[in-house]
Amino acid sequence: LKERPKTVGEVGEFELIARLESRCRTPPLPPEVALGIGDDTAVFRCDGALLLATCDIQIEGVHFELDLIGPYKLGRRAMAVNLSDLASMGGGPSFALVSMGLPACLALEGFDEIFEGMRDEMAEYQAAIVGGNLSRSPETLVLDVFMVGRASPETVLTRSGARPGDEIWVTGRLGASSAGLDLLGMYGASAPGELADLAEAHLQPRPRVREGQEIARAGVASAMIDISDGLASDLGHLCEKSGVGAEIHQADLPVADGVEDVARLSQKDMWHYVLSGGEDYELLFTAARGAGREVRRLADRMETPIRKIGAILPLDEGTWLMDAAGNRIPLGAGGWDHFGRDRGAEGE
Amino acid sequence: LKERPKTVGEVGEFELIARLESRCRTPPLPPEVALGIGDDTAVFRCDGALLLATCDIQIEGVHFELDLIGPYKLGRRAMAVNLSDLASMGGGPSFALVSMGLPACLALEGFDEIFEGMRDEMAEYQAAIVGGNLSRSPETLVLDVFMVGRASPETVLTRSGARPGDEIWVTGRLGASSAGLDLLGMYGASAPGELADLAEAHLQPRPRVREGQEIARAGVASAMIDISDGLASDLGHLCEKSGVGAEIHQADLPVADGVEDVARLSQKDMWHYVLSGGEDYELLFTAARGAGREVRRLADRMETPIRKIGAILPLDEGTWLMDAAGNRIPLGAGGWDHFGRDRGAEGE
Repeated sequence: LKERPKTVGEVGEFELIARLESRCRTPPLPPEVALGIGDDTAVFRCDGALLLATCDIQIEGVHFELDLIGPYKLGRRAMAVNLSDLASMGGGPSFALVSMGLPACLALEGFDEIFEGMRDEMAEYQAAIVGGNLSRSPETLVLDVFMVGRASPETVLTRSGARPGDEIWVTGRLGASSAGLDLLGMYGASAPGELADLAEAHLQPRPRVREGQEIARAGVASAMIDISDGLASDLGHLCEKSGVGAEIHQADLPVADGVEDVARLSQKDMWHYVLSGGEDYELLFTAARGAGREVRRLADRMETPIRKIGAILPLDEGTWLMDAAGNRIPLGAGGWDHFGRDRGAEGE
Repeated sequence: LKERPKTVGEVGEFELIARLESRCRTPPLPPEVALGIGDDTAVFRCDGALLLATCDIQIEGVHFELDLIGPYKLGRRAMAVNLSDLASMGGGPSFALVSMGLPACLALEGFDEIFEGMRDEMAEYQAAIVGGNLSRSPETLVLDVFMVGRASPETVLTRSGARPGDEIWVTGRLGASSAGLDLLGMYGASAPGELADLAEAHLQPRPRVREGQEIARAGVASAMIDISDGLASDLGHLCEKSGVGAEIHQADLPVADGVEDVARLSQKDMWHYVLSGGEDYELLFTAARGAGREVRRLADRMETPIRKIGAILPLDEGTWLMDAAGNRIPLGAGGWDHFGRDRGAEGE
């Protein structure tokens, strides 16, 4: 009996990445490339500085519903998710290229507003759209942004610098975006007033560009990543690249206001949103023990909450969540794997 | 009566580009950006060299049929069309990022082969894939490549340097790709043997990277563009950016072998393929009168045919095709406009 060939839907995103990585290993990277596949951005050397390059595709029906987000916010969001990747390296944007697949029925006014949103999001950083290409698309709107940014060779941060004993920190609060997404699913655009901020957090994420740059410049962090897949999953990426384990304390996790209320409405575990929700676009970083005072000073100056949530362990001690009762729960990737599995529930 | 809002399907690609360009004009370009929207690539300064950045999205059902092209050739083609944009500036590739939208039913083997094709196409130039992102896509496979390349500030070529009196040159022969596409439409993968090369020219374009670099290095050209939309349309782009008119001679146009036979089969005018077919990925460039000997020497050395097809005119003399009988026919954009109109027939 001949086996049916496997499809991409039957394996996880991370297996796909491993497969393409093994295929892209040859030829060797050109000398100007400092960092290839496997971090938040690629890095290449340029004029004494480092350039960062990243891209992120947004597909209608997968990443957004146009009637819920609206064209202007879609444009801002498409840029924001790329800005967050630059932020996680301690960099800021220089320019972007935009590829679009346009269904013929898209309103011309909507097309204009997408670009106005993209432009306004970039203008906050004096960065601009410098090129791209337009195509028609049979049914779904496709928006792919390629962003180039800058970082300093002295302060650039990657996923791979965390060492056992380092403490783990996170900016802002977690769970808002995925709780907001569930709210939008339940109520559409008319979420209960006191929870509207959560829907907004999902539709209009605020990338931590200034925070990422300040954390890098202060020289306190050993590794950094943005929380796009979910805390558990992104901590897993950082640990994998650094060759370490980690322990985080549930009681110390900063939960966004309203997430508990949404959990009651959706009948999900609140910690699902906080640990595996994804798309919060907060920054997770590690810093040597003893840097706590400096981190707190930074948080005060930026007026951005930064919370210590755990510590890095040696690799062979694994990755754990310590719950309120003191139980150590193995922390799987558990984030948002785009393929094959549902959001959150997998715990691979 | 309220008017129904216009859609993107009701206007041409070039109106869409004009609309987004006007929206992206603010903020002013960052100082490192040497060239924004409007040429084959964006250009930015880096380390004494110039970096080129371009992107090109390929959507299943619009740009390719996966069962006709096959995953390996699709991968090569996705890179080739971007390489051609770099070639038209006189540059070569450094690295690429790849965004993909994957339908769950895509065979894992096909996924692997797409990356093998992309890798092999880049390896011909010692260039590599350094990053990207994967997403699922509801139905259609989407493949978007962002490519960064290098050019020399002394020799980089744009669309805007053509001057009245310059002669117009084109590499290779024209019409093969669009004739091949029609063949594939008529016969699928089983085109008559002697015409199979045309189908192959469509499926597997060979970007003129080496030729573009040599033409730039020789310092003979005043402006250059690659023929992706079709000769008439791309000549129109070059004339618009240079602020000039042009006259080309039908009798001098290099027609690819077999195009006449396909025209008989498809009952189309052969000149439709040659003038408006698109996707030939040959280079069109202008050079001062008197540079002909140098251009021919270059052609001999590269073993690539380069044909003189006309001359640049002052703007107010318009853009014309001189037919075999000596009639001057106004030459509209006439290329492949992705929106609103069918391929070729428009003559705007």
